[in-house]
Amino acid sequence: MVTTSFVHLETKGHCDIHDVTAQVKNAVRESGLRDGIVTVFCPGSTGTVTTIEYESGALHDLKEILNEIVPPDRDYRHHLRWGDDNGHSHVRAAMFGPSLTVPVVEGELTLGTWQQIVFIDFDTRARSRRLVLQLTGE
Amino acid sequence: MVTTSFVHLETKGHCDIHDVTAQVKNAVRESGLRDGIVTVFCPGSTGTVTTIEYESGALHDLKEILNEIVPPDRDYRHHLRWGDDNGHSHVRAAMFGPSLTVPVVEGELTLGTWQQIVFIDFDTRARSRRLVLQLTGE
Amino acid sequence: MVTTSFVHLETKGHCDIHDVTAQVKNAVRESGLRDGIVTVFCPGSTGTVTTIEYESGALHDLKEILNEIVPPDRDYRHHLRWGDDNGHSHVRAAMFGPSLTVPVVEGELTLGTWQQIVFIDFDTRARSRRLVLQLTGE
Repeated sequence: MVTTSFVHLETKGHCDIHDVTAQVKNAVRESGLRDGIVTVFCPGSTGTVTTIEYESGALHDLKEILNEIVPPDRDYRHHLRWGDDNGHSHVRAAMFGPSLTVPVVEGELTLGTWQQIVFIDFDTRARSRRLVLQLTGE
Repeated sequence: MVTTSFVHLETKGHCDIHDVTAQVKNAVRESGLRDGIVTVFCPGSTGTVTTIEYESGALHDLKEILNEIVPPDRDYRHHLRWGDDNGHSHVRAAMFGPSLTVPVVEGELTLGTWQQIVFIDFDTRARSRRLVLQLTGE
Repeated sequence: MVTTSFVHLETKGHCDIHDVTAQVKNAVRESGLRDGIVTVFCPGSTGTVTTIEYESGALHDLKEILNEIVPPDRDYRHHLRWGDDNGHSHVRAAMFGPSLTVPVVEGELTLGTWQQIVFIDFDTRARSRRLVLQLTGE
């Protein structure tokens, strides 16, 4: 079986991190999937889906490290092209990648206890985002 | 159904970035896949598959940031082992990962408007590359 | 078909890198999978699964670069929260992502000759790890 649904998010940008674990669990439960794969995908080139311990300290640390290695406030060629200010958002999103894959076993996500599925919006403005949630298996 | 095909590329190395979106779209169309997953995989430990807005400014920015955080011109132990000069290529490829997963819904890739699927060759010489394109679903 | 198995590892932490290619190959052989996807997933928010040339020089280089861009010895807010010392482990794991997807074609993993599947433990202590290995296809 293949089942597709969507997660709608209102995001603020600037490394805004949203916990979407509950939405993914709901989709698995509603689909009746016993064993298979959940793919969570971000359409768009300034966001990512990954996992982290969703705790304010760890979220802050990730943002701070990223501000150092891919800083917002430097010259980006992408800005010259479009007059945009989100060159760093594109670089970060390409590094992290747009998708996450999590196995489901006996109807449960195989996440660790302190591991949450998150969407990170690297863009520089508020956006309405629609993530793709696809379940394949049996 | 599971369908496998390949994308052949002649690459130049040194963070050479190729847009392969058209090839992936063709593979989806030819397979007749309605709903499921496309996996794009790089066999080899010096390349990656990810998404980015395929625009010369953004591509330049990614290369420049990578030259700073994983620079080509420093001492790498990998060089001592083989007499190679691509230590940075291996580190970058391990960081980015070799594969990309994109959901297909109603016969269409769920990419954003400004989001392209790219292969990045981190190696330091021209190469013939063969990417694996696998479609699973129904 | 969907088949799930597990890989048990005793890890030392501090960027301890384990080659699990043989275990993945065994799982593919035992399952009888001809064509499809292998997903290797790390439950937990301080580890990753990726590929690299499993050669002591390249492994050393990856560790050294990570010590520079996401250093263990700086202030992390995560430490204040729990009294932990693994703030850098969480940041690294979020950057690398917890899962790897590799296509199987005619019963064989499509890895390159010098490309191994590795689990990296970014945590700061010895741990017993259980990776999820899931095969989907036909």
